[in-house]
Formats: sequence, C-alpha cells, structure tokens
Amino acid sequence: MSSDPRETHRGPSSQGSRIDPYVDAYAARAQGMVASEVRALFAVASRPEVVSLAGGMPNVSALPTDDIGEIVRRVVTEQGPTALQYGSAQGDPLLRERICEVMELEGIDAVADDVIVTVGSQQALDLVTRVFVDPGDVVLAEAPTYVTAINTFAAYQARVEHVAMDDEGVIPEALEERLGRLRSAGQRVKFFYTVPTFHNPAGVTLSPQRRVRVMEICRRFGLLVLEDNPYGLLRYEGEPVRALRADSPDNVIYLGSFSKTLSPGFRIGWALAPAAVRDKLVLAAESAMLSHSSFNQLVVGRYLAEYPWQEQIKDFNEMYRRRRDAMLGALEALMPEGVTWTRPQGGFFVWVTLPEGIDSKSMLPRAVGERVAYVPGTGFFAGDDGHRNMRLSFCYPDPDQIREGVRRLVGVIKGEITLRDTFGSASARPGHGTDAPAPDLP
Amino acid sequence: MSSDPRETHRGPSSQGSRIDPYVDAYAARAQGMVASEVRALFAVASRPEVVSLAGGMPNVSALPTDDIGEIVRRVVTEQGPTALQYGSAQGDPLLRERICEVMELEGIDAVADDVIVTVGSQQALDLVTRVFVDPGDVVLAEAPTYVTAINTFAAYQARVEHVAMDDEGVIPEALEERLGRLRSAGQRVKFFYTVPTFHNPAGVTLSPQRRVRVMEICRRFGLLVLEDNPYGLLRYEGEPVRALRADSPDNVIYLGSFSKTLSPGFRIGWALAPAAVRDKLVLAAESAMLSHSSFNQLVVGRYLAEYPWQEQIKDFNEMYRRRRDAMLGALEALMPEGVTWTRPQGGFFVWVTLPEGIDSKSMLPRAVGERVAYVPGTGFFAGDDGHRNMRLSFCYPDPDQIREGVRRLVGVIKGEITLRDTFGSASARPGHGTDAPAPDLP
Repeated sequence: MSSDPRETHRGPSSQGSRIDPYVDAYAARAQGMVASEVRALFAVASRPEVVSLAGGMPNVSALPTDDIGEIVRRVVTEQGPTALQYGSAQGDPLLRERICEVMELEGIDAVADDVIVTVGSQQALDLVTRVFVDPGDVVLAEAPTYVTAINTFAAYQARVEHVAMDDEGVIPEALEERLGRLRSAGQRVKFFYTVPTFHNPAGVTLSPQRRVRVMEICRRFGLLVLEDNPYGLLRYEGEPVRALRADSPDNVIYLGSFSKTLSPGFRIGWALAPAAVRDKLVLAAESAMLSHSSFNQLVVGRYLAEYPWQEQIKDFNEMYRRRRDAMLGALEALMPEGVTWTRPQGGFFVWVTLPEGIDSKSMLPRAVGERVAYVPGTGFFAGDDGHRNMRLSFCYPDPDQIREGVRRLVGVIKGEITLRDTFGSASARPGHGTDAPAPDLP
Repeated sequence: MSSDPRETHRGPSSQGSRIDPYVDAYAARAQGMVASEVRALFAVASRPEVVSLAGGMPNVSALPTDDIGEIVRRVVTEQGPTALQYGSAQGDPLLRERICEVMELEGIDAVADDVIVTVGSQQALDLVTRVFVDPGDVVLAEAPTYVTAINTFAAYQARVEHVAMDDEGVIPEALEERLGRLRSAGQRVKFFYTVPTFHNPAGVTLSPQRRVRVMEICRRFGLLVLEDNPYGLLRYEGEPVRALRADSPDNVIYLGSFSKTLSPGFRIGWALAPAAVRDKLVLAAESAMLSHSSFNQLVVGRYLAEYPWQEQIKDFNEMYRRRRDAMLGALEALMPEGVTWTRPQGGFFVWVTLPEGIDSKSMLPRAVGERVAYVPGTGFFAGDDGHRNMRLSFCYPDPDQIREGVRRLVGVIKGEITLRDTFGSASARPGHGTDAPAPDLP
C-alpha cells in the first residue's frame, strides 16, 4: 500500500469546535473521518531544518526525468485520441498485460483479465473494503498495520482486530487463535489484511515457512487474504520470497503499485482478484471514478515497454540500501540500552521500541523542537497501543541526514530516559490513544 | 458530471449465474453493483459501421496535441520532484486557484481553500455521497438524471426520488411538493442532486427565474444542493446563466470538471464546498486514494496558465454547435409525427420521447442491427420509467454521421410504429425496468 508522506494519526479533529451546520446531516461513517491531531506538527516537521524520518515518500529525484519527459510527450502526440479520452473502468488492457509481467517477478502467474488498474493501491484497498465490508464486520490486520488502511476500514465502519507479529512477520498461532475465537463468537470476519513483505510500519518480512502456514490457516477458515505488496521489489539483501498470491490464486486479492518502483505521481496501482471479485471491483470503480486516467496508464505502459525499468529498480535498491545501512548503523552506534528495532531487508521502514515509561507520541513535540521527526506508533493500531513505538523511514533523506536525524533523536530519547529516571515517568502521557489531545508545539 | 462513454443501464448481471464462492461474503451494498444488461450491445455498437449516438465522449481530436505534448514534457523535466511525488489529498494549491478563475465565468466567487480536486467530478459525487448518505436515506434527483449518479447513490444504498422536469428544467412546485411529503413521512432527505445547465440526459437548462425559486425552496427546507455542472461552459446559443452556487454559497456543493472543456484523459474534476463539508471531503479523499496525480494536476494547471484555454473552448463550442444543429435539423426534417425532443442550447444531449406503445429498450437491438445506437431512457431513472425515451448525443460523430445516424434511427422508429399499428404493440416489452432480460443481439 502506498505510504502517505503526510501519514497521520486518527484522533479528534482540531476543527471539532467549529460551527458546522451540516453536523446532523453526515452519514454515520463520517463520524470516523476525523482530522489528525498531529497534522499541524507535521507542517512544522516539513521545514527544511527538520530531518524528517516520518514520511514514506520515495526518492523520485533519482528518476530519469528527460526520458520520462519524452515518454509523456510522445504519449500525447502519438496516442492522443486514446490518451486524452475516457477509458474503461477496468483499465488499459496493454498496461494490465505489463502488470502481469511485473508480478511474475514474485512468482505470480496471472492473466490481464483478472487485473484492475486503480488510483494507487490505496484505491484498490478502498474498493475491496467497499465490496466486502458491512458496518460491524471484522477485518484482521497485523499489529501494527498501515495507518491509512485503518482509516479506510474505519470509513466503512469495519472493526479492526490486530494479530501479533514478531521479526518473522505475523505469528500463525496468533492468527489461528484469533480466527477461532471470532468465529466462535459468531463474528463476520471478512478478510485478513497483510503486508507480508517489508512491512509498513514494522519493516519485517513473513518467512517462507510461515507463508505456507498462514495460508493453510486462512484456507481452513475460508478466509480471504488481502495481500498488500508495494515494496516487494525493493529488496536490499536476502533471497526473494514468493508472494502469497503466487501459491493461492483462489483466496488472495493482491494489491500492487508503481508508486515506489516508478513514481507516486501517476497514481497507478492495481488489484489482482479472483474473477467474481474482479467483476465487483470493476463495478465499484465505475461508480467511484468512471475510469482512471488513460493518459497515465499509457505513460506507465510505455515506460515499462520502452525503458529498462528493472535496471531502474536496481538503481533504486542500491540507493535505498545505503540509506537503510546508514540508519541501522547509526541506531546500532548511538541508541541507548533498552531501545530495540527491526532490521528490514527491504522497503522503507524501521520499527523502534522504546523502553518502558517512554511515550513516543508525547515525546514528538520535543523531537520536532530538536529538528527531527518520526511517526509515533499509536497511529498504526486501531486501538490503544503503540505508545512505546515509532516508525522511522530511511527512504527520503540522504545517508548523512539520516545519521544526523538519528543522532538528534537519540539525544531526545536519552533526555526522556533521564526524565523518567528522575520523575518516575517521562513525558506526561496525556490520556490514551485517540482521546489524547493534540500535543503542544514547542 | 462526466458522462461515461460506455454508459449503461442498471439491471441484472449477465454473470449472475456464475459460481461465485464469495457470494455470501459481499457487503450489502455490493448487491446494488450489477453489470449492465446492455453492455454486450454497446460492444457491438462500437463497431465502425455503427453510428453511435449513445456515448458522451468529448471530441478530443480537436485538441492541440503538439502544444499539450510540450506542456506534459515540461511538467516532468521542469517540475519533476513535485510532479512525480505524492501530493496532498485536497489537491495542488495553484490548480485550485485556477479552478476558481474558471468558476468565475459562471458567477462564482470562491477561494482555493474551499476547492478539492477529484478524479473527475464522478469521484466528487462519490465522496459527497460517502460523507452524507446512510443506507435508506433519500437523495432527490431530476427525472431523468445522470445514469452513473444513480449507480453511485445505489452503491451507498440511498433511495433516489425523482422530481419532474420540463423544458425549463426541474419544476419548483414538484420539488416543493415532494420535499414536503418526504418530510412529513419522516424521511431523511440528504441533498438534491441537479444538473441545472445543459442537463444530462435531458438537454434542458433551468431558467433563471426557476433558479431563484428552487434555491428558495431548498433553503426553506434546509436542504443541501449538489450542483453538477460539467457542461456549463459549452454554450452554443443564448445568454450565460449564473451557477446555483453563485448566489448560494452556503448550501450548495458545486461539482466541476475539465473532462469536457479540456480532456477526460487527465481525470481532473473538483468539488467546491462549504468549509465544514470540504474538511470531510478531504478526509474521505485521503482514505479513498491518498491523493490525486500530482502530475496531472500540474499539467492542467500549466495548460490553464499558458494556453489560451478560453479560445479552445470557443473552438469546441463552434464544433459542437454544428453537430447539435445537424442533429436538430435531421430530427426536424425526418422524425415521424408523435416523436418529440428537447432543443439544447449547449452540452451534448437531446432527449427524445417516442409515441405511446414504442419501447426504446426493446427497440435497441433492432437499431444496432440498422447500424445506429443510442441510450434507452430507462437507465436514467432509479425506478421503472423512461421506456418511451432515448438519449441522443451529438458530441462525438461528425455532422454527416449524425444526419446518417438520425436517418437510420428514423427508419427503425417508423418500423416500430408500423408494427405497433399492425399488432397493437411494437417490440414485445419484456417485463419492466431492471427485471428485464438482456435484449438479444441481431
């Protein structure tokens, strides 16, 4: 799933006190649509003097803009009547063929007819939820999980239940236990949403052994799996793993994206789904937007056909590997005892766990004051959890900035530890989870 | 609202008999997502020998592709880091400024901060419905109304109630009566969806006198108006009218689009909404797609800044006027007595009413057999209505094709009238509305 550069936490709206004449007219689902309490903070964090380890923006400055400029020009001059016209809700057939070739790299054997092109994989997530989720239905997700997925599930009034993870990804026994308990309680569980490879935010990858086990459990429970894989091709070490969809074509909906391997600026993602589900997704897409941009689809199709895109991904991986190494090296060298973190083999994120008594959300204003930003862990849980966690991204700043950012962050954490040791608790933890007031800016 | 070139009718899915293992897992709203029964027919209708008066595709071949090719190239080479990166869910600020300038042409005084950029105005329609409509809520719409709006309302399980129109647009007394009755019955009416200018499919325009009256009624009932205005600038005769939003900033959500005045290929539409509603729409957009394409937004912004776009619209209008005149002239010259139609001053569509006993839907296969296609009227009603109507578009075929298309259509209609006069009814009318089986192809 695409990672919103302005990823934010769910919480009460700062506009809540505004007089809104429509307040009684909104749909029930709109109650879950609330502005982020840390949005204002991220505006501050985007100042140039702040090292942001918060955003999930790919480093598009590495793209060959002259070549892409020529591709977009030729799409208009050579394919104008198609590029500038409406397309089908399912998406351009040739692009869907190319998408199947991309998926082959992770072991997926698919036909273009089962692919639907979407506005980033975020829209695919929205459409899948629209097709499956009634208010009150349960969606399973890893603990933690992708923040905007939580928002999407909330927009359809789903109840998100988390399943525990460790360094090998989601824990099969935890999944089985949770599923059994929910089924016994008569709950309608609609699907298991998972980012099995280079998880956002946890940075871990589901091991091959566990992939078999997880799919076996889901098959036994007749549960659909929603596999979100925006980072799979961004591997910096280790052996490639097969997508869950590769060995389970019948009960996996697979979501892919060009936002990280090419550019988020074209908003081209996709879903690969069993035929009956694909039919529903196409109809849902039609009522959601009629059709995606023909122009953007032809641009990405042409890029894949004419440009050595696999070489471009290798270049990206070389760059991101250096950034990951800078972050892991700095964490190793500088972090005080009691702080732990994951060691991603790919993707964009490291998940940090702070010592007992340190709260990442209430620490954030202080960190921004010290010119470093991160995303507190609480945003990645539907309930009240993640207070001791933070997500650090290494995708956007360069290695020197990353090292400096970690250095600043370590200073803040050490200060918090000193405070905790002096006063019993560090930053006052203001309430819990989404009820917490917006942190004050420094 | 954008007009889907493949506009279709709601009806039972031709895939209904397929074995679908997920049939029990879908959300209740997915029951309303059904494939069109005439979709197969439109595939036939797209053959080159068929004159299609069915689609709502703008004539993009009139666009200056060399100039646009140069604009898109320069957006990538000169603004790459922005164009190829994520943007905000509300949309590019400079484009939103330009959009305010476009709306000024119809009397709207707005600030960029109240505009949200969407994937065509279709997505704006989806997001507004998402924010306001609970299952069972009532949405008012003209009779007939835009077909994909009906689909969108259905996807959110709204109940669409139609309000009668005549050649001057919606009838204020009918609106007032309907509103009063619904309120008395304790119904939650969420908004009045209207295409006041160059209506799709009816081709009529709400008169200035009625605009005042309609807004007065809606204000009195505290009803929000959803003004969908994709065609407003495509006027071929008569005086410009002020948008409803121009004089009612507080209770109108205005939807606009560049799909007809530039190109549908970029999928740039927008909503202008009161601030509290806009906040909700931005949050809904974020969970629906994170953000729109930065690239496309910069392209359209640059086109508006650098290209004489108002001259381009004048050229479009000259071309479309000739096509409209060709259609109205041919209808006048050839149609048998008892057939009536509207006379649009702009937009893309003429709404035809057939004599008693002639059914436009069951006649369609015969028309396609005679190499002419149209959209039967039934698709533009939520209930069982429109059997004697058809929508003819003059936007896409050239004047000679239009005249030939009308000539063929007249032959078919005359044949139906002869059949009716001989056997009492023309084409067997197969059941009613959405329960009708798919028509056989010739």
